[in-house]
Amino acid sequence: MADHDPDCVFCKIVAGELPARVIEEDERTIAFLDISPATPGHAVVIPRAHTADVTTASPEDLAAVAATGQRVARRALDQLDAIGVNLLNNCGARAWQTVFHLHLHVIPRYEDDGMRLPWIPTPGDPDAIAAVHARLTG
Amino acid sequence: MADHDPDCVFCKIVAGELPARVIEEDERTIAFLDISPATPGHAVVIPRAHTADVTTASPEDLAAVAATGQRVARRALDQLDAIGVNLLNNCGARAWQTVFHLHLHVIPRYEDDGMRLPWIPTPGDPDAIAAVHARLTG
Ligand SMILES: [Zn+2]
Ligand SMILES: [Zn+2]
Repeated sequence: MADHDPDCVFCKIVAGELPARVIEEDERTIAFLDISPATPGHAVVIPRAHTADVTTASPEDLAAVAATGQRVARRALDQLDAIGVNLLNNCGARAWQTVFHLHLHVIPRYEDDGMRLPWIPTPGDPDAIAAVHARLTG
Repeated sequence: MADHDPDCVFCKIVAGELPARVIEEDERTIAFLDISPATPGHAVVIPRAHTADVTTASPEDLAAVAATGQRVARRALDQLDAIGVNLLNNCGARAWQTVFHLHLHVIPRYEDDGMRLPWIPTPGDPDAIAAVHARLTG
């Protein structure tokens, strides 16, 4: 298959060549439990077709991954008694991506679970924000 | 409008009642720069129609938010010289959600930007993972 990368760990899971604890699947996506969970029930949602990251995904696969992520998030709240959920995509090695097959982390949240916000919210400098805005819209 | 919550800050931005530095918009979504940016170019993507969070979004709005998030991520890499991007949705107050109108953070990454992974990846206990899997599939 053109959509299958023989060296990709997640393609091997899709092909059944590596085991995974699958919790959701449909025509375009599968979701399985992360083997290094941030919290209990931490899952990753992937498209069956190989694509490196969020920038390269087809519109159909992107929408399908989001829809499966929504289902997995609802199940964490309903079935695992989570008190919140984070959905996170890491795009690029410098943004913590380690497997280069698009995946969406769905991380159930619990009391005192040790998760930490990736940044410290602080009001930005208005001039700096205006300058970025100009770069993006100028 | 049924889709408009008069007390919601993001609905006020959609309605033009509050200013925002918009960088993308289409029929269903708008994206604007966060006023407390984690990094330069940090944007949030929202559906125009009010919905509390990712669990309540319609399939159409969810797909549209993902598609706009993809465009904003590509622009961070192309136009802001970012070296990676994180896309993050916080669902629920206990998962760091502060505005209860669905939004997707798109955070460009740069060298030494101070962002930190929300968890410390550690191999999980296989029995614990199996137990969660059983709860979700049993
Ligand atoms: Zn792959
Ligand atoms: Zn709203």
